Amino acid sequence: MIIIGERINSTRKPITKAMEERDAEFILTEARRQWDAGSNYLDVNTAMMRAGESETMTWAVELIQADIPEALIAIDSANPAAIEAGFKAHKGRALLNSINMEKDRIDSIIPLIREFRPRVVGLTIDDAGVTQDEEKRFDLAVQLIDLLTENDVELDDIFIDPLIFPVSAELQAGNVSLNIIGRLKESYPDVHMVCGLSNISFGLPERRLINQVYMVMAMARGLDGAIIDPLDKRLMANITTARTLMGQDKACREFLKTYRAGGLNLEPAPPGRDG
Amino acid sequence: MIIIGERINSTRKPITKAMEERDAEFILTEARRQWDAGSNYLDVNTAMMRAGESETMTWAVELIQADIPEALIAIDSANPAAIEAGFKAHKGRALLNSINMEKDRIDSIIPLIREFRPRVVGLTIDDAGVTQDEEKRFDLAVQLIDLLTENDVELDDIFIDPLIFPVSAELQAGNVSLNIIGRLKESYPDVHMVCGLSNISFGLPERRLINQVYMVMAMARGLDGAIIDPLDKRLMANITTARTLMGQDKACREFLKTYRAGGLNLEPAPPGRDG
Repeated sequence: MIIIGERINSTRKPITKAMEERDAEFILTEARRQWDAGSNYLDVNTAMMRAGESETMTWAVELIQADIPEALIAIDSANPAAIEAGFKAHKGRALLNSINMEKDRIDSIIPLIREFRPRVVGLTIDDAGVTQDEEKRFDLAVQLIDLLTENDVELDDIFIDPLIFPVSAELQAGNVSLNIIGRLKESYPDVHMVCGLSNISFGLPERRLINQVYMVMAMARGLDGAIIDPLDKRLMANITTARTLMGQDKACREFLKTYRAGGLNLEPAPPGRDG
Repeated sequence: MIIIGERINSTRKPITKAMEERDAEFILTEARRQWDAGSNYLDVNTAMMRAGESETMTWAVELIQADIPEALIAIDSANPAAIEAGFKAHKGRALLNSINMEKDRIDSIIPLIREFRPRVVGLTIDDAGVTQDEEKRFDLAVQLIDLLTENDVELDDIFIDPLIFPVSAELQAGNVSLNIIGRLKESYPDVHMVCGLSNISFGLPERRLINQVYMVMAMARGLDGAIIDPLDKRLMANITTARTLMGQDKACREFLKTYRAGGLNLEPAPPGRDG
């Protein structure tokens, strides 16, 4: 499971403020907490910094990697200049979040992929916009895989995000994304399936519960990456448990280690079965 | 989703005691709480009553249906006499829990199925015993479906239990059952997939968490029935949420109704994303 910590995102007001004020300690606290919670990548989005998206990307990437040298960054931008700035600042192999099948995006970002050779998230969007349609999104995923492999990106370095729509707006939204994940994982077992989870619960109460449940349902269909808040302890406990249940945790070592560290102790014990 | 409330089982000491003493109020309290929590069937197992398994089955079935006339019982026994006693006492259509492919079991129980026409749970076991092997258990499920349909049981009245083994003992135990569920649901969409969930977590700490996570993973692969403790509030909240996420809850009505009734409010809110 590849966890991409989502919290350093300029669409969050405290992050906008910290980026504007170059508040290193605030950003580093977010970075350290997410890294310690088990992130494999830390997403950095500086899109709300208007004129300064690229400069802020450079600042944030250098800041985080100076403090946590082993940390890898997911460069989260649609702006080729900011992406290039992020890649130039980054040590080691970054993750690009994201490319899609829009012609402009392909033309501007593929050269950067060829130059810097990051791992890449591909979103199932093209110039026709976003679609609820399962077949169209499956086809877009296949097109993305073809495009990236033609440009020398290995299958193991491709992450497909099938898009998640709110189930409050579209009854089959959850099912459609589960089906796309399952079908793609069967056709391309080496490609990673990733999603930004929280959109599924938009418009409903108890959003954390919904996200926690959808996470493990998607894992049961083949999801092996997620852009999430790793500080959601139950979400992380669910992921650890699901990995164990899917045979990815020899002798349940990771599960028991997390248990001993208190990571599974989520609430007071309810009355027992015999209580 | 078809919920079979598991609590009235004579392998539980307080139930043994209540059955031995014919403590009607104790049994009825268990029955009412499980029925109110959303059970579709109440499982009744009287196997520990040694000489009195059949008499206790008659007593319990009549007791529960006199108190909750709409309640249906899952007659949980391997003993043909107790099964017949349960069927005779039962009003409406019972669920038999269970038959399997052992020759003795087939010879003694098929005549009862033909006479009383219950819905039927089939376990993937034969005279060779239980097996971890995915192919063998899949084949046994197909044999069960053939046997039952040849004896005029409709597909919609068949529940296949693929067996669940502890992941603590066998790394692939969770995966194997998920695969059997997924493959059977694809081949026989009208047959129900059911499981006794709690075996998966045997030998590990935090068993409720494991059961809660495995439940929704199995639902994502096609599980549509479960033999569970419906008083586990988070387990039931997970099931409600998973149904909504799978497009089985128009306009999220069931989810919102459960929310308003407090059924999803499971713990104090953790610090928010912007906190």
